[in-house]
Amino acid sequence: MTQACTATAVACANIAFIKYWGQRDAALTLPANGSISMNLDGCLTETSVLFDPELAGDSVWLALGGGEEEPASGRAFERVIAQIERLRAMAGNRWPVQVRSRNNFPSDAGIASSAAAFAALTCATCAALGLDVSERELSRLTRLSGSGSACRSIPAGFVEWHTDGTDAGSWAEQIAAPDHWALSDLVAVIDTGAKRVSSLHGHSLAPTSPFFDARLAELPQRLAEVRQAIIERDIERLGVATEADAISMHAVMMTQRPPAFYWLPATLLVIQAVQRWREQDHIQAYCTIDAGPNVHVICEASDAPEVESRLCELDAVQWTIVNGPGPEARIVG
Amino acid sequence: MTQACTATAVACANIAFIKYWGQRDAALTLPANGSISMNLDGCLTETSVLFDPELAGDSVWLALGGGEEEPASGRAFERVIAQIERLRAMAGNRWPVQVRSRNNFPSDAGIASSAAAFAALTCATCAALGLDVSERELSRLTRLSGSGSACRSIPAGFVEWHTDGTDAGSWAEQIAAPDHWALSDLVAVIDTGAKRVSSLHGHSLAPTSPFFDARLAELPQRLAEVRQAIIERDIERLGVATEADAISMHAVMMTQRPPAFYWLPATLLVIQAVQRWREQDHIQAYCTIDAGPNVHVICEASDAPEVESRLCELDAVQWTIVNGPGPEARIVG
Repeated sequence: MTQACTATAVACANIAFIKYWGQRDAALTLPANGSISMNLDGCLTETSVLFDPELAGDSVWLALGGGEEEPASGRAFERVIAQIERLRAMAGNRWPVQVRSRNNFPSDAGIASSAAAFAALTCATCAALGLDVSERELSRLTRLSGSGSACRSIPAGFVEWHTDGTDAGSWAEQIAAPDHWALSDLVAVIDTGAKRVSSLHGHSLAPTSPFFDARLAELPQRLAEVRQAIIERDIERLGVATEADAISMHAVMMTQRPPAFYWLPATLLVIQAVQRWREQDHIQAYCTIDAGPNVHVICEASDAPEVESRLCELDAVQWTIVNGPGPEARIVG
Repeated sequence: MTQACTATAVACANIAFIKYWGQRDAALTLPANGSISMNLDGCLTETSVLFDPELAGDSVWLALGGGEEEPASGRAFERVIAQIERLRAMAGNRWPVQVRSRNNFPSDAGIASSAAAFAALTCATCAALGLDVSERELSRLTRLSGSGSACRSIPAGFVEWHTDGTDAGSWAEQIAAPDHWALSDLVAVIDTGAKRVSSLHGHSLAPTSPFFDARLAELPQRLAEVRQAIIERDIERLGVATEADAISMHAVMMTQRPPAFYWLPATLLVIQAVQRWREQDHIQAYCTIDAGPNVHVICEASDAPEVESRLCELDAVQWTIVNGPGPEARIVG
């Protein structure tokens, strides 16, 4: 008689200092460029998988931001099951699965929750199916989920997603452990007003920007800059390169055809407030922005209370989420 | 006995559909790229020059936006006198000059008033000194003032500033007369709040953007696109290229080292409102933005009342200035 198998994993979201924008291979989720990120210890997804021959079929249950669990359907369901199917095939297992996933952060915070979700899903599934994989292999498998940046949520702390254009050579590796540097990421969740900008335009449009190639050409030097800044705990060097990279990515997005504007007026207000605090008050805080309107403000943990207090004074900011460097994706049950 | 000589000229400001950003030669004000603009019939400068051996010395009087006349000093005075001196030398005249200049638009509207000012100054001075110059030569001389885009305010209507990298080959020529196309430029003067962004960063920083070369590379095609759109009175073709060019220039500015952010939150609000009107309500209106926070909205004159009314409903917009295609710089007295 067969025995059901189960595992539960937790993974962090991550914030990229050097962004991933554009793909070399969409089917394999091979990025056009390497990227560097930090795991966010305040933005977690916990995912349980149960493989059981008694189940009637595959099911996926999602609870976002402390809300009620709801069944996933459509594209969300298909993406989860496609990743499960890849791992079931590796393990030679054909049992139906029940996936249950829960975020601790509000889904409308605009934080890329898919990174944490696919890292936790892949981690839990490998464990449940008895796939004995290295961290490198786990990261590579996570990347194949299609949520490429999820591979950066596998190692702990400060992480670089390598890419040499091959499947085997595209995985994330730790640059430094979480306790290497007490760095903070304050997510300024901005008031989006009535309407959020659509994010229909994805990686595939990146090469339509006349600036895409120039961006790629400058990235090797910027990656080296950020890597070194992390190793040396140099906030100014990290911050200048990080803010420049975010603006570079959004300049590419805004010059795509058709253009993709993720910034809202409030986004620009927060960016310019942080720039002003830096220039006028010598506060070492720097901005980065993903494909959405919220601003992540990077500073040393010792400056975080002051920066958070200032962010909360801005009308444009609804609330903040404070993060330190987070741990690796890990089995918790 | 000598006789004093005098002349008065009027010139329009202009709005560029293809922007001038970056120089090939700063001393000669040779631009890195050609540009195309429309004169603005609602934004005028009137300038009188009086050359008189009886004057004690050179003086410059400026009245901005209907305000009182005040003596210019420092850099403003020096720039005017340098241009006068160039033309006095050509004419073999050494008489002191009194310059009096007046704008009909508020100086805090953020409209580049130097274009209208140096076009009117050069036009009046050539006439007063009896320099018999062609329109082409007048445009070239105006360019040498250092306010390069002023050369586009010399011909009437829709204008292209040519550049082949030489002094003789860099001048502005009419593409089409003002009555060719009833096009409107609505300047949305935005609420700048307490502080305007400094514009310390000029043309010399343009090459520090990694995107500058890519911008230059795409301009020949975009210039051809805009030229053709004007000839064919194709608002969509003109608008798409114009808006893309403005965003491209600001993407270059934002990625300069150090970055130059001219947009304010309200700038982005107006840009996104216009994009929304286009997508949702099929209003053929397009944005362009100079090195400042205000948004110029381009549409056909038949759509101008609707667009103006919508702009005025935005809290971010303080007031609007409506312009049609303006005439050439000309002697009025």
